[in-house]
Amino acid sequence: MIVIMEENATEEQITKVVDRLVNEGFDIHRSTGARHTVLGAVGARMTDSREYELLEGVHEVVRVSSPYKLAARAFKPEGTKVKIKDVIIGGEKVVMMAGPCTLENREQIEAVAASVAKQGVQIMRGGAFKPRTSPYSFQGLGEQGLKMMREAADRHGLLTVSEIMDSTQIPMFIRYVDILQVGARNMQNFNLLKDLSKLDKPILLKRGPAATIEETLLSAEYIMSGGNHQVIICERGIKTFETYTRNTMDIAAIPVIKKLSHLPIVADPSHATGRRDKVPPMARAAVAAGADGLLIEVHNEPERALCDGAQSLLPEQFDKLMEQLRLIAPAVDRTI
Amino acid sequence: MIVIMEENATEEQITKVVDRLVNEGFDIHRSTGARHTVLGAVGARMTDSREYELLEGVHEVVRVSSPYKLAARAFKPEGTKVKIKDVIIGGEKVVMMAGPCTLENREQIEAVAASVAKQGVQIMRGGAFKPRTSPYSFQGLGEQGLKMMREAADRHGLLTVSEIMDSTQIPMFIRYVDILQVGARNMQNFNLLKDLSKLDKPILLKRGPAATIEETLLSAEYIMSGGNHQVIICERGIKTFETYTRNTMDIAAIPVIKKLSHLPIVADPSHATGRRDKVPPMARAAVAAGADGLLIEVHNEPERALCDGAQSLLPEQFDKLMEQLRLIAPAVDRTI
Amino acid sequence: MIVIMEENATEEQITKVVDRLVNEGFDIHRSTGARHTVLGAVGARMTDSREYELLEGVHEVVRVSSPYKLAARAFKPEGTKVKIKDVIIGGEKVVMMAGPCTLENREQIEAVAASVAKQGVQIMRGGAFKPRTSPYSFQGLGEQGLKMMREAADRHGLLTVSEIMDSTQIPMFIRYVDILQVGARNMQNFNLLKDLSKLDKPILLKRGPAATIEETLLSAEYIMSGGNHQVIICERGIKTFETYTRNTMDIAAIPVIKKLSHLPIVADPSHATGRRDKVPPMARAAVAAGADGLLIEVHNEPERALCDGAQSLLPEQFDKLMEQLRLIAPAVDRTI
Amino acid sequence: MIVIMEENATEEQITKVVDRLVNEGFDIHRSTGARHTVLGAVGARMTDSREYELLEGVHEVVRVSSPYKLAARAFKPEGTKVKIKDVIIGGEKVVMMAGPCTLENREQIEAVAASVAKQGVQIMRGGAFKPRTSPYSFQGLGEQGLKMMREAADRHGLLTVSEIMDSTQIPMFIRYVDILQVGARNMQNFNLLKDLSKLDKPILLKRGPAATIEETLLSAEYIMSGGNHQVIICERGIKTFETYTRNTMDIAAIPVIKKLSHLPIVADPSHATGRRDKVPPMARAAVAAGADGLLIEVHNEPERALCDGAQSLLPEQFDKLMEQLRLIAPAVDRTI
Repeated sequence: MIVIMEENATEEQITKVVDRLVNEGFDIHRSTGARHTVLGAVGARMTDSREYELLEGVHEVVRVSSPYKLAARAFKPEGTKVKIKDVIIGGEKVVMMAGPCTLENREQIEAVAASVAKQGVQIMRGGAFKPRTSPYSFQGLGEQGLKMMREAADRHGLLTVSEIMDSTQIPMFIRYVDILQVGARNMQNFNLLKDLSKLDKPILLKRGPAATIEETLLSAEYIMSGGNHQVIICERGIKTFETYTRNTMDIAAIPVIKKLSHLPIVADPSHATGRRDKVPPMARAAVAAGADGLLIEVHNEPERALCDGAQSLLPEQFDKLMEQLRLIAPAVDRTI
Repeated sequence: MIVIMEENATEEQITKVVDRLVNEGFDIHRSTGARHTVLGAVGARMTDSREYELLEGVHEVVRVSSPYKLAARAFKPEGTKVKIKDVIIGGEKVVMMAGPCTLENREQIEAVAASVAKQGVQIMRGGAFKPRTSPYSFQGLGEQGLKMMREAADRHGLLTVSEIMDSTQIPMFIRYVDILQVGARNMQNFNLLKDLSKLDKPILLKRGPAATIEETLLSAEYIMSGGNHQVIICERGIKTFETYTRNTMDIAAIPVIKKLSHLPIVADPSHATGRRDKVPPMARAAVAAGADGLLIEVHNEPERALCDGAQSLLPEQFDKLMEQLRLIAPAVDRTI
Repeated sequence: MIVIMEENATEEQITKVVDRLVNEGFDIHRSTGARHTVLGAVGARMTDSREYELLEGVHEVVRVSSPYKLAARAFKPEGTKVKIKDVIIGGEKVVMMAGPCTLENREQIEAVAASVAKQGVQIMRGGAFKPRTSPYSFQGLGEQGLKMMREAADRHGLLTVSEIMDSTQIPMFIRYVDILQVGARNMQNFNLLKDLSKLDKPILLKRGPAATIEETLLSAEYIMSGGNHQVIICERGIKTFETYTRNTMDIAAIPVIKKLSHLPIVADPSHATGRRDKVPPMARAAVAAGADGLLIEVHNEPERALCDGAQSLLPEQFDKLMEQLRLIAPAVDRTI
Repeated sequence: MIVIMEENATEEQITKVVDRLVNEGFDIHRSTGARHTVLGAVGARMTDSREYELLEGVHEVVRVSSPYKLAARAFKPEGTKVKIKDVIIGGEKVVMMAGPCTLENREQIEAVAASVAKQGVQIMRGGAFKPRTSPYSFQGLGEQGLKMMREAADRHGLLTVSEIMDSTQIPMFIRYVDILQVGARNMQNFNLLKDLSKLDKPILLKRGPAATIEETLLSAEYIMSGGNHQVIICERGIKTFETYTRNTMDIAAIPVIKKLSHLPIVADPSHATGRRDKVPPMARAAVAAGADGLLIEVHNEPERALCDGAQSLLPEQFDKLMEQLRLIAPAVDRTI
């Protein structure tokens, strides 16, 4: 922690800050510049830096250590590869995860599974429990849906990913699902994160709509600190003043997280934009920016979808997108 | 729902939209203006308006019904008063809720309870389970803390409010706590909201840092739709580009929610600003803008607080604030 | 400037950073902690701290000096009072500035001037050149308007404030207007700021909708650095994801700017909210938070206003607001 | 304009709204649904829709016509191509604009011009007048810089683009510069926009950091409404709560503006991110999302740049980026 004193701080004020730091067990390095005195406080203890900001004569306090350790790039400079059977997330291949927003019935699930498997998708996505903003919307098929998706996925050689809503669902999800997804609205549901940290299952952690990159990595740290290091980050847009798209997809977060962390990062253009016609350009942008994978909503009959049909691609639109992505991947030394 | 066609929409495009609306069970009113054709679609069914926005020739689609009903002012124009024993939230008196961020030990709890009770506070606040952004921070005293707060509150004739983290804690909270608080990060934890909707206990619902006013009222609707109409909204700041304060406190949300909804609204300047020296001005501003109550952190020794000491007022600062608030309340026809 | 190295930075990387800093003329203080090496760079020269962030092995770079000097509280700890005739902005009295958004005709100007003067307002506001978002909106009366406002103001013993659009208008404004207002959209029109810095006239500088507090104070610094120290800051709302109100009024900016700077700060609830019914609560909140003055739109016939009638108070609403503010002012040791 | 009445609006309230609309010259279409009465108001006159929102019994008012006409896609469905000599912006080829942030001296200008021309860049960028946030930063070479850039550009067969700061500079810019750039901070400097609207010169209009897409198109409309239809929009990032990058680049704005408007849209990843290492991924993303061109900062010695060196690419980094872009362009049916 570094404490920068005001230009006109008195010696007495400086001494008071130093004494308090020493009391808290810090070693102090003092530099006196032309205008400011700067105190470098070195020590292992965590403290609330804001408390020092409120002391008399203090101009600013800067935290030095990044608050996450296990999620930091330095912890594993070569990068994490999450492996599930023969699928590797964070490797050379950009991994496609596709499927309907909501699992609706056996026909829909089979139709979409067949269609995306044909296109080289490796992981099927589909929601069985839906976090709906309105209590009056369709809330999902539940366990029945997970089971149907598992069967369809197995028929087509796909892995599965689905959103878990709370800790009580863990045993059920472990039975049917390969990657447990933490939704954007649950990104700081710390009780859930702690329970997931005990599992030996990959977790796909979606960035919350108000979460900074640092807060997202701290949520990853929660999961890792319990022993589960198989975390995949997912960029899906943040809340901004621009409301034409549902959220503002922060494409720059992809290379930023690549630099700050060793964890793989994928992107979800379907939820970020909320509009089918904007999904292909943003999917292409994410791959061009270096994403390790994509999460895309595909529906065989989006006009009849029970949820978010407006952001689901038709199978033929998805086919065309795959063609475009195959052209882009080599530009970032990847395959798809 | 109102569908506004593009200026150059063809008759064929218009017919296609009309047919689809009719198929979905809507009655259609068509107006043809100088430039635009406008379709008014009347019907009870919920539909995804974005789906229509993607149709050829459509310029914009406007949802007419507000998505919340029970939380809307029209549902109870005279306003809701949440009554617990002799305390009324939403009445003429501005209700003060004060106490430490985190319950730490018996001495601290007793000291703060005594100090705030003396100042006319009616409800004691205190966290026993803390949603900490970092997994390495102090996580709270747990049930022991709730029990100690209950005892201290009873000694001083106070009610209590505390944050519940997930549904499994409901039986424990019901035993010790008068008002169950849903934290900002859990505002869209819909499973939790649904479980709370079955209780006969007041819920204090904090606005999420990325939640619009409409989304906040929809979360209130979740709780009300299960039968629990004792909901208190709490404004505590939103995420914006301004980072000097922890969040940007949206004081205007207070009169806006008063207009849109019949539910009481209180404000939490401690979490909104994150800095002790900014709490009194924002507390005064909230009351001046019409808040029904305040949630304020007070700590007898903030320098030693285990959590958020930097935003806790000293008892003497709280005393001074109360004096100021007593001067302001009459300007909005309230007492304190 | 402080350069914090990565945990695993090599000695070679550290040396490279030190050499570059020395070459740029900095004195270096090196502290080696348990995990990080920290370099304190002391020197007068301005440099681009981001350039160091890009060097190998660097974790973070922190700028120490605040980029504004003249606008900083330390430059004039007792606070600036802007005096114009017998009006003092930044003193004990909260200064009211009121009038129509747009000057429309002689009758309107006279009616509003008479009405606000009767209520103790000291400064009349009114726009003669309007920065309209749409080129098809009414663009203002021009010089004729300024002249009419001057005459009406003189009849009623009022000072005047009006928005200047560019440097070519300076001679005209000096003739008619007491306080030159820089609009939010011009807050970083640096050529204009430089020209205003040469004048001996008070400047009311509105915070831009995307401007941080620091950027706002840097714009004040531009005006001060040319010699004009009579700057009044004005908070009028920032752009956020909440769109119910036109902007989100950042009431906390009032006490924050009071702490960081010696300049007076006023608030404009009319432009911040864009809705007449939200102006009184936000005006009360601003005074309760410590604003040195208010800028309020008042119109004798808002339904016929040529611009922003929806946010103008009727004279009787303004009267009622003044009564409320007179009750609130003593809570912050002010009069009104 | 569509006025949606409250569910419990009285017949008297409805009549009052209708009367006022009729008085303002609107034709009214009334639909009465199960819950709401909806009034469709058809007419040519512009009115302030917020005024109606404040009437008793009104739930919401929706503006139907988009406020921009000339900039709307419907005005020129086939898309605008801005042609300057043999360069076409908005055609099949993605147009590269590259050069230093600031023009510094003859050697620098020549070195960069030679380097980018070799890579197939068609337009050289370079600032001669810099809008610096701090009054103490280097403010640019002025006319001398424009002249040197003109000569270097001519030697290498390049066109030029440079930022104009105010209307008084128009004659000078016309002499030396092919495309006049309006900076982000000037996007709503309406006096400047009006003066540019009289020219027969292409204008590159940067989106402001707090400007919605609609506001950006309204600023384009300002320029077009005076007769100058050669407008190029530029996405360069918006202000959000995420501060790791300087701004959050809104890549989705590219396909959105393509849909809403016929004007070409280019992207500036250098200013959007503010960090050299994030420029290539965001440049690739912008092209993958469909941008018509890129504006990139390149400097032969970025470590010595007088401004924004940290975001300038080295010539060899730019070469590598061009290779990547050539692979990506075919995915969106473009060349580069």
